[in-house]
Amino acid sequence: MAAECRHREIPPRSGTAFTLAKGDRLSVIDPCGEQVADLLAYNRHDVGEVISSGRTLDYASRIYLTTGDPLYSNRSNVLLRIVEDTVGRHDFLLTPCSADTFRIIYGDADPHRGCFGNLAAALAPFGIGPDAIPVAFNCFMNVPIDAATGAFTVEPPLSRAGDRIVFEAEMDLIIGLTACSALQSNGGSFKPIHYEITRSGSASLPSNF
Amino acid sequence: MAAECRHREIPPRSGTAFTLAKGDRLSVIDPCGEQVADLLAYNRHDVGEVISSGRTLDYASRIYLTTGDPLYSNRSNVLLRIVEDTVGRHDFLLTPCSADTFRIIYGDADPHRGCFGNLAAALAPFGIGPDAIPVAFNCFMNVPIDAATGAFTVEPPLSRAGDRIVFEAEMDLIIGLTACSALQSNGGSFKPIHYEITRSGSASLPSNF
Repeated sequence: MAAECRHREIPPRSGTAFTLAKGDRLSVIDPCGEQVADLLAYNRHDVGEVISSGRTLDYASRIYLTTGDPLYSNRSNVLLRIVEDTVGRHDFLLTPCSADTFRIIYGDADPHRGCFGNLAAALAPFGIGPDAIPVAFNCFMNVPIDAATGAFTVEPPLSRAGDRIVFEAEMDLIIGLTACSALQSNGGSFKPIHYEITRSGSASLPSNF
Repeated sequence: MAAECRHREIPPRSGTAFTLAKGDRLSVIDPCGEQVADLLAYNRHDVGEVISSGRTLDYASRIYLTTGDPLYSNRSNVLLRIVEDTVGRHDFLLTPCSADTFRIIYGDADPHRGCFGNLAAALAPFGIGPDAIPVAFNCFMNVPIDAATGAFTVEPPLSRAGDRIVFEAEMDLIIGLTACSALQSNGGSFKPIHYEITRSGSASLPSNF
Protein backbone atom coordinates (compact mmCIF):
# COMPACT_ATOMS: atom_id res chain seq x y z
CA MET A 1 0.00 0.00 0.00
CA ALA A 2 1.44 3.39 -0.94
CA ALA A 3 2.48 5.68 1.90
CA GLU A 4 1.07 9.18 1.99
CA CYS A 5 3.45 12.10 2.36
CA ARG A 6 2.73 15.72 3.27
CA HIS A 7 5.06 18.64 3.83
CA ARG A 8 4.48 21.78 5.90
CA GLU A 9 6.31 24.90 7.08
CA ILE A 10 6.23 26.42 10.57
CA PRO A 11 7.02 30.15 10.20
CA PRO A 12 9.69 31.71 12.45
CA ARG A 13 8.68 32.08 16.15
CA SER A 14 5.47 30.10 15.75
CA GLY A 15 4.10 26.63 16.44
CA THR A 16 1.52 24.07 15.44
CA ALA A 17 -0.13 20.87 16.61
CA PHE A 18 -1.39 17.79 14.74
CA THR A 19 -2.06 14.12 15.22
CA LEU A 20 -0.06 11.05 14.31
CA ALA A 21 -1.35 7.49 14.11
CA LYS A 22 0.71 4.58 15.37
CA GLY A 23 3.27 3.75 12.68
CA ASP A 24 3.34 7.22 11.13
CA ARG A 25 6.72 8.88 10.68
CA LEU A 26 7.40 12.54 11.44
CA SER A 27 10.44 14.24 9.89
CA VAL A 28 11.49 17.51 11.52
CA ILE A 29 13.69 19.39 9.06
CA ASP A 30 15.88 22.44 9.58
CA PRO A 31 15.66 24.11 6.14
CA CYS A 32 18.16 26.95 6.78
CA GLY A 33 20.41 25.50 9.49
CA GLU A 34 20.92 26.42 13.17
CA GLN A 35 17.18 26.43 14.00
CA VAL A 36 15.64 24.61 16.98
CA ALA A 37 12.19 22.92 17.00
CA ASP A 38 10.55 22.04 20.35
CA LEU A 39 8.54 18.83 20.21
CA LEU A 40 5.84 17.62 22.62
CA ALA A 41 3.83 14.39 22.42
CA TYR A 42 0.63 13.27 24.19
CA ASN A 43 -1.39 10.06 24.05
CA ARG A 44 -4.16 10.98 21.61
CA HIS A 45 -6.75 8.97 23.56
CA ASP A 46 -5.78 10.21 27.06
CA VAL A 47 -3.84 13.47 27.19
CA GLY A 48 -2.84 12.87 30.83
CA GLU A 49 -0.12 10.69 29.29
CA VAL A 50 2.68 12.96 28.08
CA ILE A 51 6.32 12.86 27.04
CA SER A 52 8.67 12.56 30.03
CA SER A 53 12.29 13.69 29.93
CA GLY A 54 12.90 12.20 33.38
CA ARG A 55 11.76 8.70 32.45
CA THR A 56 13.38 8.76 29.01
CA LEU A 57 16.80 9.91 30.22
CA ASP A 58 16.69 7.51 33.17
CA TYR A 59 16.07 4.51 30.90
CA ALA A 60 18.66 5.67 28.33
CA SER A 61 21.36 6.50 30.93
CA ARG A 62 22.27 9.32 28.55
CA ILE A 63 21.17 12.95 28.17
CA TYR A 64 21.92 13.18 24.43
CA LEU A 65 19.57 10.99 22.39
CA THR A 66 19.79 9.90 18.76
CA THR A 67 18.80 7.16 16.27
CA GLY A 68 17.29 4.12 17.97
CA ASP A 69 16.38 5.85 21.22
CA PRO A 70 12.74 5.68 22.41
CA LEU A 71 10.96 8.68 23.95
CA TYR A 72 8.88 7.55 26.94
CA SER A 73 5.75 8.95 28.57
CA ASN A 74 5.13 9.70 32.25
CA ARG A 75 3.54 6.21 32.35
CA SER A 76 6.68 4.58 30.91
CA ASN A 77 5.16 3.73 27.55
CA VAL A 78 7.10 4.47 24.36
CA LEU A 79 5.47 7.37 22.49
CA LEU A 80 8.02 7.88 19.72
CA ARG A 81 11.26 6.34 18.55
CA ILE A 82 14.04 8.23 16.76
CA VAL A 83 14.61 6.34 13.50
CA GLU A 84 16.93 8.76 11.68
CA ASP A 85 19.07 11.68 12.84
CA THR A 86 21.57 13.58 10.68
CA VAL A 87 22.67 15.90 13.53
CA GLY A 88 23.08 13.87 16.75
CA ARG A 89 22.77 16.75 19.19
CA HIS A 90 19.44 17.70 20.76
CA ASP A 91 18.35 18.90 24.20
CA PHE A 92 15.93 17.19 26.58
CA LEU A 93 16.64 19.15 29.79
CA LEU A 94 14.96 22.51 29.31
CA THR A 95 11.35 23.69 29.09
CA PRO A 96 10.12 25.58 26.03
CA CYS A 97 11.16 29.24 25.99
CA SER A 98 8.37 31.48 27.29
CA ALA A 99 7.50 35.05 28.25
CA ASP A 100 9.01 34.10 31.64
CA THR A 101 12.25 32.98 29.97
CA PHE A 102 12.59 36.26 28.13
CA ARG A 103 11.75 38.25 31.29
CA ILE A 104 14.02 36.28 33.67
CA ILE A 105 16.98 35.47 31.39
CA TYR A 106 16.91 38.26 28.80
CA GLY A 107 15.28 41.04 30.89
CA ASP A 108 12.67 41.84 28.21
CA ALA A 109 10.01 44.29 29.39
CA ASP A 110 7.42 43.21 26.80
CA PRO A 111 8.37 39.59 26.12
CA HIS A 112 7.32 37.36 23.21
CA ARG A 113 5.13 34.40 24.24
CA GLY A 114 7.84 32.03 23.06
CA CYS A 115 7.55 28.34 22.24
CA PHE A 116 5.56 27.86 25.45
CA GLY A 117 2.87 30.33 24.38
CA ASN A 118 2.89 28.97 20.82
CA LEU A 119 2.51 25.39 22.06
CA ALA A 120 -0.22 26.34 24.55
CA ALA A 121 -2.20 28.03 21.77
CA ALA A 122 -1.72 25.13 19.33
CA LEU A 123 -2.60 22.46 21.92
CA ALA A 124 -5.64 24.22 23.41
CA PRO A 125 -8.05 22.81 20.77
CA PHE A 126 -6.98 19.33 21.90
CA GLY A 127 -7.96 20.09 25.51
CA ILE A 128 -4.35 20.42 26.67
CA GLY A 129 -3.75 23.36 29.04
CA PRO A 130 -0.49 25.25 29.68
CA ASP A 131 0.16 23.49 33.03
CA ALA A 132 0.38 20.21 31.07
CA ILE A 133 3.40 21.39 29.06
CA PRO A 134 6.52 19.67 30.40
CA VAL A 135 10.16 19.64 29.26
CA ALA A 136 10.06 19.32 25.46
CA PHE A 137 12.35 17.29 23.23
CA ASN A 138 14.21 20.21 21.70
CA CYS A 139 15.31 19.08 18.23
CA PHE A 140 18.70 20.50 17.18
CA MET A 141 19.16 22.46 20.45
CA ASN A 142 22.81 22.38 21.46
CA VAL A 143 23.42 22.51 25.22
CA PRO A 144 26.94 21.40 26.17
CA ILE A 145 27.55 20.80 29.89
CA ASP A 146 30.65 21.27 32.02
CA ALA A 147 30.77 17.90 33.78
CA ALA A 148 32.66 19.20 36.83
CA THR A 149 30.41 22.14 37.72
CA GLY A 150 27.20 21.18 35.92
CA ALA A 151 27.16 24.61 34.24
CA PHE A 152 25.77 24.61 30.72
CA THR A 153 25.60 27.03 27.82
CA VAL A 154 23.16 27.32 24.94
CA GLU A 155 25.24 27.25 21.75
CA PRO A 156 24.22 27.52 18.06
CA PRO A 157 22.71 24.24 16.79
CA LEU A 158 25.01 21.87 14.91
CA SER A 159 22.33 21.46 12.21
CA ARG A 160 23.04 22.62 8.64
CA ALA A 161 20.43 23.39 5.99
CA GLY A 162 18.48 20.23 5.18
CA ASP A 163 19.38 18.30 8.32
CA ARG A 164 16.58 16.27 9.85
CA ILE A 165 15.49 14.05 12.70
CA VAL A 166 12.80 11.43 12.03
CA PHE A 167 10.47 9.92 14.64
CA GLU A 168 8.16 6.92 14.35
CA ALA A 169 4.96 7.00 16.44
CA GLU A 170 4.54 3.93 18.65
CA MET A 171 1.00 4.96 19.64
CA ASP A 172 -1.65 7.38 18.38
CA LEU A 173 -0.39 10.83 19.37
CA ILE A 174 -1.02 14.55 19.51
CA ILE A 175 2.16 16.41 18.61
CA GLY A 176 3.08 20.02 19.38
CA LEU A 177 5.95 21.44 17.31
CA THR A 178 7.57 24.87 17.02
CA ALA A 179 10.13 26.97 15.23
CA CYS A 180 11.89 28.15 18.39
CA SER A 181 11.61 31.79 19.49
CA ALA A 182 14.77 32.26 21.59
CA LEU A 183 17.64 34.12 19.90
CA GLN A 184 20.38 32.34 21.83
CA SER A 185 19.06 28.88 20.95
CA ASN A 186 19.05 29.59 17.22
CA GLY A 187 22.44 31.15 16.53
CA GLY A 188 21.06 34.71 16.69
CA SER A 189 18.25 34.65 14.10
CA PHE A 190 14.70 33.29 13.72
CA LYS A 191 14.11 30.81 10.90
CA PRO A 192 11.31 28.43 9.86
CA ILE A 193 11.06 24.70 10.52
CA HIS A 194 9.77 22.21 7.98
CA TYR A 195 8.05 18.95 8.82
CA GLU A 196 6.82 16.01 6.86
CA ILE A 197 4.45 13.22 7.86
CA THR A 198 4.66 9.84 6.22
CA ARG A 199 1.46 7.99 6.95
CA SER A 200 1.74 4.33 7.70
CA GLY A 201 0.10 2.34 4.92
CA SER A 202 -1.71 0.14 7.40
CA ALA A 203 -2.85 2.88 9.76
CA SER A 204 -6.06 4.42 8.49
CA LEU A 205 -7.36 6.23 11.57
CA PRO A 206 -8.94 9.59 10.75
CA SER A 207 -6.68 12.57 11.44
CA ASN A 208 -7.37 16.27 11.74
CA PHE A 209 -3.99 17.06 10.20
CA MET B 1 8.43 35.04 68.37
CA ALA B 2 9.81 31.56 69.01
CA ALA B 3 10.08 29.20 66.05
CA GLU B 4 8.50 25.78 66.29
CA CYS B 5 10.59 22.75 65.44
CA ARG B 6 9.53 19.16 64.72
CA HIS B 7 11.54 16.15 63.68
CA ARG B 8 10.38 13.05 61.78
CA GLU B 9 11.76 9.86 60.26
CA ILE B 10 10.85 8.37 56.87
CA PRO B 11 11.50 4.59 57.07
CA PRO B 12 13.55 2.92 54.32
CA ARG B 13 11.76 2.63 50.93
CA SER B 14 8.79 4.76 52.00
CA GLY B 15 7.51 8.29 51.60
CA THR B 16 5.33 10.98 53.12
CA ALA B 17 3.63 14.27 52.33
CA PHE B 18 2.96 17.38 54.41
CA THR B 19 2.37 21.09 54.06
CA LEU B 20 4.69 24.05 54.51
CA ALA B 21 3.65 27.66 54.96
CA LYS B 22 5.52 30.48 53.28
CA GLY B 23 8.64 31.17 55.34
CA ASP B 24 8.87 27.67 56.87
CA ARG B 25 12.19 25.86 56.57
CA LEU B 26 12.49 22.17 55.70
CA SER B 27 15.71 20.31 56.55
CA VAL B 28 16.22 17.01 54.76
CA ILE B 29 18.80 15.01 56.71
CA ASP B 30 20.68 11.85 55.73
CA PRO B 31 21.12 10.18 59.14
CA CYS B 32 23.28 7.23 58.01
CA GLY B 33 24.97 8.58 54.86
CA GLU B 34 24.61 7.65 51.15
CA GLN B 35 20.79 7.82 51.15
CA VAL B 36 18.73 9.74 48.56
CA ALA B 37 15.45 11.61 49.28
CA ASP B 38 13.18 12.57 46.37
CA LEU B 39 11.40 15.89 46.93
CA LEU B 40 8.30 17.25 45.15
CA ALA B 41 6.56 20.57 45.77
CA TYR B 42 3.12 21.86 44.73
CA ASN B 43 1.34 25.17 45.29
CA ARG B 44 -0.88 24.39 48.28
CA HIS B 45 -3.72 26.51 46.93
CA ASP B 46 -3.60 25.25 43.31
CA VAL B 47 -1.92 21.90 42.77
CA GLY B 48 -1.70 22.47 39.00
CA GLU B 49 1.40 24.50 39.90
CA VAL B 50 4.28 22.09 40.49
CA ILE B 51 8.06 22.00 40.72
CA SER B 52 9.73 22.20 37.28
CA SER B 53 13.21 20.89 36.60
CA GLY B 54 13.15 22.38 33.11
CA ARG B 55 12.41 25.93 34.22
CA THR B 56 14.72 25.77 37.23
CA LEU B 57 17.73 24.46 35.32
CA ASP B 58 17.12 26.88 32.44
CA TYR B 59 17.16 29.89 34.77
CA ALA B 60 20.17 28.59 36.74
CA SER B 61 22.19 27.63 33.61
CA ARG B 62 23.45 24.77 35.76
CA ILE B 63 22.27 21.19 36.39
CA TYR B 64 23.82 20.90 39.88
CA LEU B 65 22.08 23.19 42.36
CA THR B 66 23.12 24.24 45.85
CA THR B 67 22.84 27.00 48.48
CA GLY B 68 21.17 30.13 47.14
CA ASP B 69 19.48 28.46 44.18
CA PRO B 70 15.69 28.83 43.80
CA LEU B 71 13.46 25.93 42.70
CA TYR B 72 10.86 27.19 40.22
CA SER B 73 7.39 25.96 39.33
CA ASN B 74 5.93 25.24 35.88
CA ARG B 75 4.55 28.82 36.10
CA SER B 76 8.00 30.29 36.80
CA ASN B 77 7.28 31.18 40.42
CA VAL B 78 9.82 30.32 43.11
CA LEU B 79 8.49 27.50 45.31
CA LEU B 80 11.55 26.84 47.47
CA ARG B 81 15.04 28.22 47.90
CA ILE B 82 18.04 26.18 49.05
CA VAL B 83 19.40 28.01 52.10
CA GLU B 84 21.93 25.47 53.40
CA ASP B 85 23.62 22.46 51.80
CA THR B 86 26.43 20.43 53.38
CA VAL B 87 26.77 18.09 50.37
CA GLY B 88 26.59 20.10 47.14
CA ARG B 89 25.61 17.24 44.83
CA HIS B 90 21.97 16.48 44.03
CA ASP B 91 20.10 15.37 40.92
CA PHE B 92 17.32 17.21 39.09
CA LEU B 93 17.20 15.23 35.82
CA LEU B 94 15.50 11.95 36.68
CA THR B 95 11.98 10.96 37.68
CA PRO B 96 11.34 9.10 40.94
CA CYS B 97 12.17 5.39 40.77
CA SER B 98 9.07 3.30 40.12
CA ALA B 99 7.83 -0.20 39.37
CA ASP B 100 8.61 0.70 35.74
CA THR B 101 12.18 1.65 36.65
CA PHE B 102 12.75 -1.66 38.39
CA ARG B 103 11.15 -3.55 35.50
CA ILE B 104 12.94 -1.71 32.67
CA ILE B 105 16.37 -1.05 34.24
CA TYR B 106 16.71 -3.86 36.78
CA GLY B 107 14.53 -6.52 35.10
CA ASP B 108 12.54 -7.22 38.30
CA ALA B 109 9.56 -9.53 37.73
CA ASP B 110 7.64 -8.37 40.83
CA PRO B 111 8.91 -4.80 41.27
CA HIS B 112 8.63 -2.53 44.33
CA ARG B 113 6.41 0.53 43.78
CA GLY B 114 9.44 2.76 44.33
CA CYS B 115 9.52 6.46 45.20
CA PHE B 116 6.91 7.06 42.49
CA GLY B 117 4.40 4.73 44.14
CA ASN B 118 5.25 6.06 47.60
CA LEU B 119 4.80 9.65 46.45
CA ALA B 120 1.55 8.86 44.63
CA ALA B 121 0.13 7.25 47.78
CA ALA B 122 1.27 10.10 50.03
CA LEU B 123 0.00 12.83 47.70
CA ALA B 124 -3.38 11.23 46.90
CA PRO B 125 -5.09 12.75 50.00
CA PHE B 126 -4.13 16.18 48.64
CA GLY B 127 -5.90 15.48 45.34
CA ILE B 128 -2.65 14.98 43.42
CA GLY B 129 -2.72 12.03 41.00
CA PRO B 130 0.22 9.98 39.67
CA ASP B 131 0.22 11.73 36.25
CA ALA B 132 1.02 14.97 38.09
CA ILE B 133 4.35 13.64 39.42
CA PRO B 134 7.18 15.21 37.42
CA VAL B 135 10.97 15.06 37.74
CA ALA B 136 11.72 15.36 41.47
CA PHE B 137 14.54 17.24 43.15
CA ASN B 138 16.54 14.23 44.25
CA CYS B 139 18.41 15.29 47.40
CA PHE B 140 21.89 13.70 47.69
CA MET B 141 21.50 11.74 44.41
CA ASN B 142 24.86 11.63 42.63
CA VAL B 143 24.64 11.51 38.84
CA PRO B 144 27.91 12.45 37.12
CA ILE B 145 27.74 13.04 33.35
CA ASP B 146 30.27 12.45 30.62
CA ALA B 147 30.17 15.80 28.85
CA ALA B 148 31.29 14.43 25.48
CA THR B 149 28.76 11.61 25.12
CA GLY B 150 26.06 12.71 27.56
CA ALA B 151 26.21 9.29 29.24
CA PHE B 152 25.62 9.34 32.98
CA THR B 153 25.97 6.90 35.84
CA VAL B 154 24.19 6.72 39.18
CA GLU B 155 26.91 6.67 41.84
CA PRO B 156 26.72 6.43 45.65
CA PRO B 157 25.68 9.75 47.21
CA LEU B 158 28.45 12.00 48.54
CA SER B 159 26.44 12.53 51.74
CA ARG B 160 27.85 11.32 55.09
CA ALA B 161 25.84 10.65 58.26
CA GLY B 162 24.27 13.90 59.46
CA ASP B 163 24.58 15.80 56.20
CA ARG B 164 21.62 17.99 55.29
CA ILE B 165 20.04 20.27 52.73
CA VAL B 166 17.70 23.01 53.95
CA PHE B 167 14.94 24.65 51.90
CA GLU B 168 12.90 27.76 52.66
CA ALA B 169 9.33 27.86 51.33
CA GLU B 170 8.59 30.95 49.24
CA MET B 171 4.87 30.12 49.03
CA ASP B 172 2.44 27.82 50.86
CA LEU B 173 3.28 24.32 49.65
CA ILE B 174 2.45 20.64 49.66
CA ILE B 175 5.66 18.62 49.87
CA GLY B 176 6.21 14.97 48.92
CA LEU B 177 9.38 13.39 50.34
CA THR B 178 10.84 9.88 50.27
CA ALA B 179 13.62 7.65 51.48
CA CYS B 180 14.58 6.40 48.02
CA SER B 181 13.89 2.79 47.02
CA ALA B 182 16.51 2.17 44.29
CA LEU B 183 19.57 0.16 45.33
CA GLN B 184 21.90 1.82 42.84
CA SER B 185 20.98 5.35 43.97
CA ASN B 186 21.76 4.61 47.61
CA GLY B 187 25.13 2.87 47.56
CA GLY B 188 23.55 -0.61 47.70
CA SER B 189 21.39 -0.43 50.87
CA PHE B 190 18.09 1.10 51.99
CA LYS B 191 18.24 3.59 54.86
CA PRO B 192 15.86 6.10 56.48
CA ILE B 193 15.66 9.84 55.86
CA HIS B 194 15.06 12.39 58.61
CA TYR B 195 13.39 15.72 58.15
CA GLU B 196 12.74 18.71 60.33
CA ILE B 197 10.36 21.61 59.83
CA THR B 198 11.08 24.97 61.39
CA ARG B 199 7.88 26.97 61.32
CA SER B 200 8.20 30.63 60.52
CA GLY B 201 7.31 32.70 63.62
CA SER B 202 5.03 34.95 61.62
CA ALA B 203 3.28 32.25 59.58
CA SER B 204 0.40 30.78 61.52
CA LEU B 205 -1.64 29.12 58.79
CA PRO B 206 -3.16 25.82 59.90
CA SER B 207 -1.23 22.77 58.75
CA ASN B 208 -2.11 19.12 58.62
CA PHE B 209 1.49 18.20 59.38
